[in-house]
Amino acid sequence: MAQPAPGLSGENEVVREIERAFADQRSGSLLVGMGDDAALWRAGRGQEAILTCDWFLEGTHFLRDQHPPDAVGWKSLARAASDTAAMGGIPKCFLLSLALPANCTGDWLRGFLRGLRRASRTLGCQLAGGDTTRRNEILIHTTVIGEVGSGRAVLRYGARTGDLLYVSGTLGEAELGLRELRRQRGTGDASTNVFVRKHLYPEPRIALGHWLGKNRLATAMMDLSDGLSSDLPRLCSASRAGARITAASLPSVAQSAAKDAVELALNGGDDYELLFAVRPQNARKIGTKFRGLTLTRIGVITRGNKLLVEQDGRWRPLVAGGWDPFR
Amino acid sequence: MAQPAPGLSGENEVVREIERAFADQRSGSLLVGMGDDAALWRAGRGQEAILTCDWFLEGTHFLRDQHPPDAVGWKSLARAASDTAAMGGIPKCFLLSLALPANCTGDWLRGFLRGLRRASRTLGCQLAGGDTTRRNEILIHTTVIGEVGSGRAVLRYGARTGDLLYVSGTLGEAELGLRELRRQRGTGDASTNVFVRKHLYPEPRIALGHWLGKNRLATAMMDLSDGLSSDLPRLCSASRAGARITAASLPSVAQSAAKDAVELALNGGDDYELLFAVRPQNARKIGTKFRGLTLTRIGVITRGNKLLVEQDGRWRPLVAGGWDPFR
Repeated sequence: MAQPAPGLSGENEVVREIERAFADQRSGSLLVGMGDDAALWRAGRGQEAILTCDWFLEGTHFLRDQHPPDAVGWKSLARAASDTAAMGGIPKCFLLSLALPANCTGDWLRGFLRGLRRASRTLGCQLAGGDTTRRNEILIHTTVIGEVGSGRAVLRYGARTGDLLYVSGTLGEAELGLRELRRQRGTGDASTNVFVRKHLYPEPRIALGHWLGKNRLATAMMDLSDGLSSDLPRLCSASRAGARITAASLPSVAQSAAKDAVELALNGGDDYELLFAVRPQNARKIGTKFRGLTLTRIGVITRGNKLLVEQDGRWRPLVAGGWDPFR
Repeated sequence: MAQPAPGLSGENEVVREIERAFADQRSGSLLVGMGDDAALWRAGRGQEAILTCDWFLEGTHFLRDQHPPDAVGWKSLARAASDTAAMGGIPKCFLLSLALPANCTGDWLRGFLRGLRRASRTLGCQLAGGDTTRRNEILIHTTVIGEVGSGRAVLRYGARTGDLLYVSGTLGEAELGLRELRRQRGTGDASTNVFVRKHLYPEPRIALGHWLGKNRLATAMMDLSDGLSSDLPRLCSASRAGARITAASLPSVAQSAAKDAVELALNGGDDYELLFAVRPQNARKIGTKFRGLTLTRIGVITRGNKLLVEQDGRWRPLVAGGWDPFR
């Protein structure tokens, strides 16, 4: 990028800075991108459109002095793209809405766009448009449009009694990273800590979700954004079912990393791993790895609506302890 | 709606209140609506998807003590739907993202949803999903997904030298309504003043935009949200052309309503009328009315990049005086 002015003035200038950052993207299914009243997009043959969006707000979802702008850019797209993974689909393009303080239109905006652009390339998800305005705090809103083969979307409500419950990856890592970030208060080198990296640069499980959907292996699926104890009840409620999970089976961070590893796995948010249900006869096809990513069987779908967790031989009700902004 | 609690607690409750307000909507092209990780939508045969979104923020775009929640609901959808009109398309569904203070989850939320629901029905644009969180100020973000026949979208860049410039309706009314609203400071009956109504409940020109696109009558088009003096340069810049308009031709509010009627027509924002260019040979097909809505020829597209306005026999450069949040 050329030598930038210390700050931009005028909405058109902010828009141009964004356009410059994404100038080299290929068009593909995006017929008209930025610069008009709206974008024009065409889904592939036999594909349905996935529509999803997410807030990413200063003070609520990130802190300006603790989260590098680059990570804010990455995460604002990765979070919304994770919802397309949770449907078994592929992200295709996105709308970016930004409200910025005047003193964030220089360095901060460029750092943000760098991270966003990297996420956009990694995920194959093109910028299609958006809206910009001025505000005393940084407000970000991302809408992702994805694609999934007709009839291949995996919803939350398809789980049946006896289905096995799986999660991808390790749970609680992002929460542990957030703790570490707070402890360092921006003084440490965030990039060297694996947990901090997972908190700052989550990787939506697009390939896994797509594979499960395409091969009709998952009967229900969602991504874990608020924590297992908050999200599992949503999958069960949609499926009108209960569930039993065992604490010992949870793929949590090692006890050496955190004494409360089980609580972290149950309540830690922001992991963006996939939670999915599988018919027992398909368990063999799932296995324990998908392209290097660990898949762990954590429990089973049950009749009724109770959610229980077994720990040290005792069953207790699963209590939602994850993230809820209204609580 | 049943007797509501004075306020809701928990994100799930806010989501349920929104779901209840839209429980009776028909599905149509929306295969999966609220309640899952994302929505599923399929464009009609031979149609392309229009993607657009808009901020609607307390303090920036509306004031909690002056704008009735019902109007905030209406306008948050109408503004974004207007962008689909500007492409010659039809709005089909939308994503609603809300960030609310805890004391706005009762009466305010219900009033807001009433207005939003009315806009949704009037525009035939169904709620597909969204995101909710808590915040000390009301933040609204609306993404609208629309449809337009393949190859029939009207973009901003198609205007050619000699094309005639038209606008729909009357310009400056919404700005005059905003002035009146500020003067009353919430004490008057907003609903009886026609200008206040235009400011609070703008009507996107969907039918006109669709007709112009379908019949290939407009070579370039956009909606007027920031004011003619800010928006016309955008259409001209996209078309690599200039324009000449005449002040006397502008369909402004009557001089009796405002002494600065011409300035209002040039710089007043929020009208959501359509600005479009037409080949001279098609002028007869355009006429002066479309289903009761006035269409006015205000000028012509010229070679070069100059934008001039003629007033009282003199030509002066058109200076952007409309809304720009970064200025």
